[in-house]
This record gives sequence, C-alpha cells and structure tokens, in this order.
Amino acid sequence: MTLTTDVAAASTRRPALIAGFTAPKGFGDATLRDRRVDAIELLGGIPDPQLLPARELTEATARVLDRPGVPALQYSRTEGISPLREWIAEREGVPVERIIITNGGFHGLSLAIQTVLERGDLVAVDNPVFPLFLRGLELAAARILPIRVGAAGLDVQQLADNLRAGARPAALYTVPDFHNPTQGTLPAEARAELVRLAEHYGFTVFADNPYRELWYQTGPESTDAFNHSDRVIHINTFTKTLGPGLRLGWVVVPAGLAADVVALRSRQDSHSSTLVQAIVGELVTHDAGLFDATLGRARAVYRARAETLVAALEREAPGAFDAIVPAGGLFLWPRLTDDAIDADRLAADASAEGIEYQRGSFFPSGPGTDADRHLRLAYGHVPEPQLEEAAARLGRALRKQSAR
Amino acid sequence: MTLTTDVAAASTRRPALIAGFTAPKGFGDATLRDRRVDAIELLGGIPDPQLLPARELTEATARVLDRPGVPALQYSRTEGISPLREWIAEREGVPVERIIITNGGFHGLSLAIQTVLERGDLVAVDNPVFPLFLRGLELAAARILPIRVGAAGLDVQQLADNLRAGARPAALYTVPDFHNPTQGTLPAEARAELVRLAEHYGFTVFADNPYRELWYQTGPESTDAFNHSDRVIHINTFTKTLGPGLRLGWVVVPAGLAADVVALRSRQDSHSSTLVQAIVGELVTHDAGLFDATLGRARAVYRARAETLVAALEREAPGAFDAIVPAGGLFLWPRLTDDAIDADRLAADASAEGIEYQRGSFFPSGPGTDADRHLRLAYGHVPEPQLEEAAARLGRALRKQSAR
Repeated sequence: MTLTTDVAAASTRRPALIAGFTAPKGFGDATLRDRRVDAIELLGGIPDPQLLPARELTEATARVLDRPGVPALQYSRTEGISPLREWIAEREGVPVERIIITNGGFHGLSLAIQTVLERGDLVAVDNPVFPLFLRGLELAAARILPIRVGAAGLDVQQLADNLRAGARPAALYTVPDFHNPTQGTLPAEARAELVRLAEHYGFTVFADNPYRELWYQTGPESTDAFNHSDRVIHINTFTKTLGPGLRLGWVVVPAGLAADVVALRSRQDSHSSTLVQAIVGELVTHDAGLFDATLGRARAVYRARAETLVAALEREAPGAFDAIVPAGGLFLWPRLTDDAIDADRLAADASAEGIEYQRGSFFPSGPGTDADRHLRLAYGHVPEPQLEEAAARLGRALRKQSAR
Repeated sequence: MTLTTDVAAASTRRPALIAGFTAPKGFGDATLRDRRVDAIELLGGIPDPQLLPARELTEATARVLDRPGVPALQYSRTEGISPLREWIAEREGVPVERIIITNGGFHGLSLAIQTVLERGDLVAVDNPVFPLFLRGLELAAARILPIRVGAAGLDVQQLADNLRAGARPAALYTVPDFHNPTQGTLPAEARAELVRLAEHYGFTVFADNPYRELWYQTGPESTDAFNHSDRVIHINTFTKTLGPGLRLGWVVVPAGLAADVVALRSRQDSHSSTLVQAIVGELVTHDAGLFDATLGRARAVYRARAETLVAALEREAPGAFDAIVPAGGLFLWPRLTDDAIDADRLAADASAEGIEYQRGSFFPSGPGTDADRHLRLAYGHVPEPQLEEAAARLGRALRKQSAR
C-alpha cells in the first residue's frame, strides 16, 4: 500500500528552514516520565476550565449561526472581523487598523518573528525565558542575547549596558506582566525606558502579554508605553481568559507594519476562523459586562490558589523555599533556600510522590541565572485542596533528600 | 500619541521574506469596481450558506462545550484531535499518523510550500492556475514552470516532455478534481502517470482537492494514486462542504514528512482551534450519515444550478459560448466563440449591467493558453432565478459589443 522507503530516501532534501529546527528538548521532558495516575500536575499555565464561560460561548454560537446568510461560516478579512476587532481596539486604546487578529499568542509571536527578523538576526531575550519562544525564533534562525530577568521583570539596565557596548539586536522579547516563569512584572518606568531604548537603537520590542488581565489586586500595568510606539509589537491572546482551545488572540502592531503582517498571513492561512471570531465577538459585545465579570471571578480564584499554595509550602516545608505570592498570572517561582538540595533529584522524588512541575533549569536562555534553584509551579487550574496535597507531597520529596 | 515617523523610517528594514511579496494584482481587480447595488456576483467559489449545516453545528457546539472539563477549550496536539483526525483518516484510507489538521486548504498549501521547497526552487504549476497559489509560492521565492491545463485537467504529457528535456521541479501544483478555474478533472490514468513521474524524477505533487466531494453524478475520482505515494501531499478542506469560515482542513502527507509539518506548525500557530475541531468532529461522528447527507443535498443543488446556468447562457446568448455542464465543483469556464469580442470590455459592460465574474485573463500562469477568451462563473451560491437573470445581463452586455 505505501511505497518502499528507498524512493523517498533517494531524493529526500529538507529546506534550510526545516533542517534548522532542533528537536524539542528540556521543556517537555517531564511529560515523558511515568506519572502516577493520581499525579497532581502543576506543569502548564492553563486556565481552570470551570472559570471559562462555556455556557455563554454556547449561547453566543447559537446566535451567530442563526444569522441570515450565516456570515460566521464564510470567508472574512485577513485582519479580523467586526465587532471583535473594534472591541479589542477600544480596550487597547488604538485605531482599529493597528489590531490584527491571530490564532493565539504564540501565533502572534511567530508573525512578529517572521515579519520583523531577517535570517540570522540577533534577538535580545528574557533570561530565564518562556522556552517555546526560542523554538519560534528558529523560523528566522535568530541568534540570541540573553538579558537577565529578576523579581521586577527584565533588567533594562543590563540591556542598556549591552546596547552601549555595541550590541545591535533587531528585536527584544519579554513577558512584561506576571512573567513566565519568574512571576515578576516590569514597572512602568522600566517599560518607558525599554521603549526609549528601542526607539533610539532601532529594535522592535516583542511584548508578550498573555497574563496581563490576570492581575489580583492592583489592576493592570498601563499599556501606554507599548501601544504608542512604532517600535513595539504588543502580543495578546484570549488563551488565559477564555480558553487556549479557541486559538484566538491579537497583536497591536505599529501602523507601518500592519500591511506586512497581513501580507504574510494572506500567504499562510488567510485568516483566523470566522466562526471563532464571531463567537467571541458576540460573547464580549452582547453583554458588555460579561468579559470583565468572567475575569473578576478568575482573578479571585487564582489569587486564592496562589495564597493557598504559598502558605501550604511554608507549612509543609518550613523555610525550604523563598516564595512570594504572585501579583497576578498563573505561576509561582519559589527558590530553594538550601543549596545542598539537588533540584533534579527533587523533581524525580516529587514525581514519585505524585506531583509534577517544571524544573527551573528548563528556563535559562543563557548563563548567569539561579533558575536551576527554582521550581515553576503552575497553580491556576488546580483546586485548593489539591494544592495543599501537592505541597505535602513536595515536602515529603524534600525530606527524602535531607534524610539521605 | 504616535511617534514621529522619522524614527521608524530611519531604521526600517524589511526581511527578504516580506520584501519579496508582490502587491496583489489581477485576481482582486473586480472587487475594486463600483458595483451596482443589485449586482449578481459570480466571483468566488463559495458554498451556499443555506446548504451548510448551521443548526447541526450549533447542536454539536452545545454538546462539546457541555463536556466535563471542556477539553474543546484547552490546548491540543499539533497534529489534530480525536475523533476528527481518525474520521478523516478512515475516509482517506490512510493511517491516522499521515493526517494533519490545518486551518483550511490554503493553509495546507502554505505548509506544503514551506515544508518541501527550498528558496528559489522551481515549481511546475497549472496553466491556467488558481492565482492565490502563486502568491503562496512567494513564501519560498519559487520560480514557476507552467504546465497546460485542458478539459481533462493537467497535461501530464507536457509535464513529462519538460522533465525529459531536463526540467527539474521540486514540486508540481495542480487541482485534480473540478479544476479551478477550468472545471476539468484529471482522469485516473493521468493521475497514476503523474505520480509515477513524481517518484521517478523526485518531485512532490501538491494535489489541491477542495472540490473533490462536490461531484454531481459519477462519484469521486479514486484517491488511491494520491494517498499511497511518498511523493504526494494531498490537500483538502471543509471549506466547500461545511463552510469557509470554519478555517478547517487537512493534509494527507507522506509518513516521512509528518514530523516536519508538525515541527513547522508548532513554531507558527501551535495547532488549529480545538473548539472548531471538536465541533466538526462531533458533527461528523454523532450522526454518521450527516456529512454525506449534507453533501448529497449540496451536490443536487449545485448540479441544478450548473445546468440552469448553461441552459440560460445558450438561451440568452445563443452560440456565444462554448460551455459544458461541469461534472462537479463550483465553476463554469465558458469560452467566447467569437474572437471579435473584447473580453475586458465585456466584463466592464457586464458590470454595468449588474453581473460580476472573474475574467479568464486573471488565471494564466504563463503563455500559450486561451484563458483570456474564457469567463469564470462561480454559480454555487447563486439561486437559479438569479442565474437566469445573470445570463440575461451577460447577454445584454454581449449585444452591446456586437452592436458597436
């Protein structure tokens, strides 16, 4: 039925683009382990399914599929459709022409990479970094310049020092709000300084902001610095608020770049699903308060879970971690206080106890961090009793090592 | 609020990928005309909204969004989800590992282009051709080798002559069933010969098959030749059957290529909407007969419209066109019998009368065709009374010119 493989093998030649892709490594390793069937997984920054407006999405679907001529099932503009695009533009405070709908946040990153970067360009990146971004950079065979990320986000001073010393990146990648993995947020002044540097040195900031709406107390950081510069692509998504499975997001692009992004997309996948855009557009405009009410519930739940997890870690493993309750987002980045603890052995023992998380050592983009002394615990989708149990299991795993 | 443009202008530099994109031309021109408000548009190969199962899609959505944990709103595998992928694999008669879900047919083409072609490669293409494919080829800066398409599809003999004369394309692009724009279908023997040539000379066939399910009488051509060679990527979509707005399709890829396509997609947009995949998967599996029943209704309607249009053209403009009732698909490709008719003037006069269509001159990929003597009339979404009226308007437009 299939041909002999020597036909294919004889003339197999992979394009440079594809040949340059590395095999996945590091980030996904934990998924390869044999897990306990009752394992508690704190692996991915996913929203709690119970906090997603499934019923309202069903109702919105019924309404959009009942419209005469069913426009939700037809072709639509590459840029995105009304009223979704206008609703986003108003929230972002930019002209609608600067909004381009995407298939989620990662798609926004890939469009930014392909639209801005020449092959082989230098790109400054968070260190530690969201590792999948580095995979995306392979689309442009880019080289990286790691910039330290601390408790207050990207170290803009270190970036400035590099620029003054002659580094000329074409772009800089950072997660400004509730950083993945380090949970910090870039203060307003540092944002403004970052944008000033981008404008002065002529690089583009890829501001990757999926967690921005998930603030717990003090409200979101202002988007002004990012949304009003010709040197920033501000990348966002409904993934963490309405569900990753929608595959729906948007980019705020400089006015001069919109046509290039559209030209690229019209050669790749034409446009995001009209149906998904219509459903979400209907959801957020039919009841003007629904989106924020949904987020309000989510923020309260995620905050309670974050507080529960931090308290449980201190109770189950007193003094073992430096842990700060996150100000938002879905990640806790606790640091092992005892340098004698072997972090890899801890992850293996924790897995045996029935708790899975990402080791901090998965996240560095370069040397000079203490990421390997950290754990990334994603708590958003895990109910509080399970978080208490997870902390107890982690405590037992730690004691195994101190007992050795 | 926005920066002075000289900041951006000072260091604007577009990547070669983007700079290589040409401005849209030709195909979209008709959309720029001032249309009559009562214009009948035979422009695009779009399905009739009334033939799409909107109610059943609503019901399927309600069921998938009511499932515990709402997996339809979560991340999923890059390859696509169950049961959709298995259902497609069974229909295609291939192992599920060879099916990759896409965001529609054009997305499948773009993945094929990016996965198979090195920049600057030579690609043999239909002549006349679906013009947007040529735009997609700009992703690989490919050069083209036009191969004639006639009433029986691609001229495989002309391709063979080119190959024997030394042409070494990396790929060949064709629409084998109910060709866009020329309505022809490649016979089984020519398919087999095409695949033999691909295997012998080591190029990949991009078989673009969006209209395949829309046969009117004799059933579909066998997919065997395309689905059982390591030298074919068989591209399909739900666009013409369940609706373009879903943005959902699939590719049947050689087993050895699946990992490369997945590697590319995992760097571009991760995966197609889980929600859309779940809805369509539920639709086609909840009631095993629904998809074919939907298609059965569509085929009967499209066939009746095709027959009506051909009869109306002969009645309204006797002898003016060579027109054959299509055996399937959404396009009629009538030829002007009178060489004295100016086809561009006809299109302008037709527009003034209130009928819009694509001129045949939009479609050649190279010299040597009579495409400029043809019209492409897309009738699928137009009710019969409007098709009769369209033919009357076209007849009046023709008479304007004969009266001159």
